[in-house]
Amino acid sequence: MVELADVRAAAERIRGLVHRTPVMTSATVDGDLGASVFFKCENMQKVGAFKARGACNAVMALDEESARRGVTAHSSGNHAAALAYAAARRGIPCVVVMPDSAPQVKVDAVRGYGAEIVFCPQGEREAACERVQRERGAVLIHPFENPYVIAGQGTAVLELLDIVGDLDVVLVPVGGGGLCAGTALTVKALRPATQVIAAEPDAVDDAARSMASGERQPTVANPRTIADGLMTGLGEPNFAIMRDHDVRVVTVSEDEIVAAGRFFLERMKIVVEPSAATVLAAMGRIARELSGRRVGVVLSGGNTDFRWLV
Amino acid sequence: MVELADVRAAAERIRGLVHRTPVMTSATVDGDLGASVFFKCENMQKVGAFKARGACNAVMALDEESARRGVTAHSSGNHAAALAYAAARRGIPCVVVMPDSAPQVKVDAVRGYGAEIVFCPQGEREAACERVQRERGAVLIHPFENPYVIAGQGTAVLELLDIVGDLDVVLVPVGGGGLCAGTALTVKALRPATQVIAAEPDAVDDAARSMASGERQPTVANPRTIADGLMTGLGEPNFAIMRDHDVRVVTVSEDEIVAAGRFFLERMKIVVEPSAATVLAAMGRIARELSGRRVGVVLSGGNTDFRWLV
Repeated sequence: MVELADVRAAAERIRGLVHRTPVMTSATVDGDLGASVFFKCENMQKVGAFKARGACNAVMALDEESARRGVTAHSSGNHAAALAYAAARRGIPCVVVMPDSAPQVKVDAVRGYGAEIVFCPQGEREAACERVQRERGAVLIHPFENPYVIAGQGTAVLELLDIVGDLDVVLVPVGGGGLCAGTALTVKALRPATQVIAAEPDAVDDAARSMASGERQPTVANPRTIADGLMTGLGEPNFAIMRDHDVRVVTVSEDEIVAAGRFFLERMKIVVEPSAATVLAAMGRIARELSGRRVGVVLSGGNTDFRWLV
Repeated sequence: MVELADVRAAAERIRGLVHRTPVMTSATVDGDLGASVFFKCENMQKVGAFKARGACNAVMALDEESARRGVTAHSSGNHAAALAYAAARRGIPCVVVMPDSAPQVKVDAVRGYGAEIVFCPQGEREAACERVQRERGAVLIHPFENPYVIAGQGTAVLELLDIVGDLDVVLVPVGGGGLCAGTALTVKALRPATQVIAAEPDAVDDAARSMASGERQPTVANPRTIADGLMTGLGEPNFAIMRDHDVRVVTVSEDEIVAAGRFFLERMKIVVEPSAATVLAAMGRIARELSGRRVGVVLSGGNTDFRWLV
């Protein structure tokens, strides 16, 4: 299991490699909810997402011999760029397995950090990634089931609490559960009374079903959601940590996600990707419960092509 | 003329009414230019633009008797919302004259602050505004030729200097010249060696022509630019202040403005309106001169419909 001490160690390990991102507030949000809401801007993190934290922690924690062999993962999203960035900072090889269909902008981002890309058909990514591990000895850095990744993601809320003090409620989005698990274990270790809430699209509600049933449920096949970072099913250690820390899941509609994304752009003047905008949508769903509370939110990322805007 | 003391008085007058906006940096910008660049985020200011500063200063400086009569201006842009906001904070009437063609989102913003709107055909705005002054006794708060407005706009760079210390170069966009004049007189009073540079679209280059000829030149009729906040011709006192303080004007193309706006969205994750993005475009034009310098930039606003993005 991952503990608060691991998160603190991660914070030390990644210092100087990631940004201590700013915390923003909105008079409009606070007025609408009658609450004090603090947005931790991981959309302004290195590589545009909190994923830089977990990837840097995992890569920097590798012993010398493992590190020399290089790292690998399959991802077409923020973890790919984060791993490439982390490996570049350590000066070790990185091979990212991406589907043939990956958008050029993401391919360019990963190449920009100097990583090698192995392309394969969408359904063969795991096999291709296993081949890279076998043939090159590269170490797999799983995007959310790796304990160092989970601890690294927990550092975002650790910073938030350090900056703004105690919180009554903390909200994060949940996909694979790296951020959610890291946040929950950190928050609960420091202040057990704080409620941790995870936001998830209605269209990929496996975390909600898993928490409701007490057992990890299969994810939705080919989900249709603009929250492209949350399509992954919940990981096993991630689910266990969420269950142990009473994480509550709130699901939101696609229209609510778009409206939340627009609010960030038009009112707060910041770019928040749809996966991250789910948290504001979730706050709308439970608005009355938040009245009078101090609420922390991790805005997980800001990488988007704005297609949802038009 | 407006002096540093007026800017300092403005800063006192508007304290608590406007945000002390954050200053952002970008490792990418610094790396590309070999400079240290500090972005003062007036896109995150009240009403989404620096205009809140000048309008609040002018409205709060009114004597009781004038204030009771209310304020007016013709504007379909950020000054309209700023004046409505300032009047609401003082609790006095505000009548904004807007063209029939004003976008609904701007109409809603002004109404949201409780101001009355008088609509008229595009070409009759000045006459309509004069009628409001005559019939209701309302005080005209000109968007940039008013000395209190100029002093108020100068408070943005005053804060920037307070936060980051001395700067070698300061960049702002120029339209009517309220921000540019207020910035120039403030910067030059505090540090005469600092260079003040104004960015302007190629399509509305009256400030560049005015500074080059030493006499205020007529603006371009019906200019075609996405920088909708910079279509206005340079004001008379604004030009005089700019000339007295050796402001240099750099003009930029529409393509450069779009690329700069995209950079803010995609890399810095902030929303910067095209008029404000001109400054980054101008920095690209004079990149070599900025090498090794400490550069301050006022990001003037963040109100945009994103049509330039697609």
